[in-house]
Amino acid sequence: MKYSFASRFEGVTGSAIRNMFKYMRDPEMISFAGGNPSAATFPKEALAELSEEILATDSKRILQYGSTIGLTDLIEEVQKLLQSEGLSPAMEELIILTGSTQGIDLMCKVMLNPGDTMLCEAPTFLGALQTFQLYQANIVGVEMDDYGMVLEDLETKIKKYKPKFVYTIPTFQNPSGLTLPAERRKAIAGLAEKYGTLILEDDPYFALRFEGEFVPSIKSYDKSGMVVKLMSFSKTISPGLRVGAAYADEEIINKFQLGKQGQDVHTANLNQEMVADYLRSGAYPARVEKNRKLYKEKMELMYNTVKKCFPKDAKVVKPQGGMFIWVELPENMHATELLQKALKKKVLYVPGTHFYANGGHHNTLRLNFTMADETSIEKGIKVLGEVFSE
Amino acid sequence: MKYSFASRFEGVTGSAIRNMFKYMRDPEMISFAGGNPSAATFPKEALAELSEEILATDSKRILQYGSTIGLTDLIEEVQKLLQSEGLSPAMEELIILTGSTQGIDLMCKVMLNPGDTMLCEAPTFLGALQTFQLYQANIVGVEMDDYGMVLEDLETKIKKYKPKFVYTIPTFQNPSGLTLPAERRKAIAGLAEKYGTLILEDDPYFALRFEGEFVPSIKSYDKSGMVVKLMSFSKTISPGLRVGAAYADEEIINKFQLGKQGQDVHTANLNQEMVADYLRSGAYPARVEKNRKLYKEKMELMYNTVKKCFPKDAKVVKPQGGMFIWVELPENMHATELLQKALKKKVLYVPGTHFYANGGHHNTLRLNFTMADETSIEKGIKVLGEVFSE
Repeated sequence: MKYSFASRFEGVTGSAIRNMFKYMRDPEMISFAGGNPSAATFPKEALAELSEEILATDSKRILQYGSTIGLTDLIEEVQKLLQSEGLSPAMEELIILTGSTQGIDLMCKVMLNPGDTMLCEAPTFLGALQTFQLYQANIVGVEMDDYGMVLEDLETKIKKYKPKFVYTIPTFQNPSGLTLPAERRKAIAGLAEKYGTLILEDDPYFALRFEGEFVPSIKSYDKSGMVVKLMSFSKTISPGLRVGAAYADEEIINKFQLGKQGQDVHTANLNQEMVADYLRSGAYPARVEKNRKLYKEKMELMYNTVKKCFPKDAKVVKPQGGMFIWVELPENMHATELLQKALKKKVLYVPGTHFYANGGHHNTLRLNFTMADETSIEKGIKVLGEVFSE
Repeated sequence: MKYSFASRFEGVTGSAIRNMFKYMRDPEMISFAGGNPSAATFPKEALAELSEEILATDSKRILQYGSTIGLTDLIEEVQKLLQSEGLSPAMEELIILTGSTQGIDLMCKVMLNPGDTMLCEAPTFLGALQTFQLYQANIVGVEMDDYGMVLEDLETKIKKYKPKFVYTIPTFQNPSGLTLPAERRKAIAGLAEKYGTLILEDDPYFALRFEGEFVPSIKSYDKSGMVVKLMSFSKTISPGLRVGAAYADEEIINKFQLGKQGQDVHTANLNQEMVADYLRSGAYPARVEKNRKLYKEKMELMYNTVKKCFPKDAKVVKPQGGMFIWVELPENMHATELLQKALKKKVLYVPGTHFYANGGHHNTLRLNFTMADETSIEKGIKVLGEVFSE
């Protein structure tokens, strides 16, 4: 080895998923991997107009350095948006991020010393797992049932490990698609207060509800400043713009700001202002409603095709929103081995094992239903059905 | 303390400079602090048109997730630009960053374990110092003379400390304004190879040369893959867009990519494509030439006014480019105490001590000449002259 890399990179290869991206470039490949929104949901005309207008009228401010905390215009709009969701952030409790992904990194940076324990759902978002690894966390998974994190297991592990924080995606979880019910959310906020354990509530799919009732954010039950909430515009406006936000106690936001300063100084001003202006234009709720309808149709199509074509004893959870369907194949089937066969037939998915810190169920897989078009969904799922039934 | 923050934040307050930003918001304040380019240099019409055009014609790609490494369009343009500067990067040796600042963070992330030693010029960029602190580096300063880093001291300290890397801003250094001569650059590349020590060459001011001859990049002398070069479009196109790049051995670029993934997934596509298209349009060289002329005038005005109004025994280095003039006041003067008097007269600068890891010369200060207009430069420097002569 020519270079002596930092210990934090030991065992971090990122290669499994990077290899998949290679396949995604094949134009004949039907991809149910990735977590890309449908390009049909991007408000492209509005954003094109806004970008030109902002730069034509406000370039002196927009093209200059901005403050690390974010543009006041966008902080105000995020505040209003969160208020419409039953939350009540002060301006000082918000920071604009370069995507909510940055919030996961900053939470680790601000809270974790190497070897510290944190808890997360098992399975969970694989990007987050890689970040926890890079901060050399002791990652402990919490059991899930059909409603998300199991409270008893969570409390046991909080007592046992005294974790620095608990990472959860409570709504339409990635990868399981599950949504934590209101009473569990309230209980989690209670556990956070009782044990002085922080909760990192990552909620990028919140707006993408197709059916069922609104469930309040864990943050809405937070009386002790122990919940850090992340939100994102990647699933509702555009991921390519890289704009998200964090809502937390001012003391934590100040540390996030220090941590972000060295990472990118600030989130690009043009992108912030485009999102702020788009929110202010009033077009956002109707746009989100349209996305929901589109995704519901795609989800129904995928779910029904899965039910029809996959082995009868496969367990499939129908999500109430979000972007993913989680499948548990019969115990004797191996999703990673089957992927090789699927790839030969030009269909791609992510085997479930990637979503576990310490190896997970080899018979699980995640299907994304937002990216592929209807024809591809039907065709691709049928192919998978054949592969899994062989 | 309600929260138990990670050890890396111990002693990192960021407050000195944040306090200054507060003053910068006062519209009557003449600021020679900060490192902002002149808004007059932003190619605002071109960028406004490009943004609209890109989103109108290519939104499906631009508003979607992109790859962490960056858009091929921009990587190709950066490759050509570096070629025009006498370098020869392969595509695989480049990664697009959210400003070159991200490169400093990634270098630390990829190379430093807590307690590891790294070397840097004393004084150096204060943002970089904060990042080194957050990675819990043992920061050791290398002596500078009128031409930049002193080679003997550098070699002595490489032998003594076996540092993970040496951070240097070789061209129009921040804050000293000094430029390292070609023979020293070659020698530094030689030391890197001889001792197996990496060099982080941060070169954001490279293009802003007003006079004197072109000096090749340290990277151009690198035969052993030991130099990581950072470049930025913040000083030549716009800092608000947040676009920079790193050029290094492919093995290092791959690790940068893993480290960046969790920070922001990728640099915003729109911003990347705007810079790529702007470079491709051919307008860049003429724009940079225009910036140089403007900055040369401002620098000359500031330098001459300083020479006229500051105490006769103040030492002032006339830079050949960049954005800063470094002043060494007489030994009995204290730049931080004097700043309080200057602030009352509505003039702001950064005391030199902030640019040293372990306390520096109390009689030094940094003046930025790019942000303030001509009238303010004359007025502000005269005020400082009065304050310093009292």
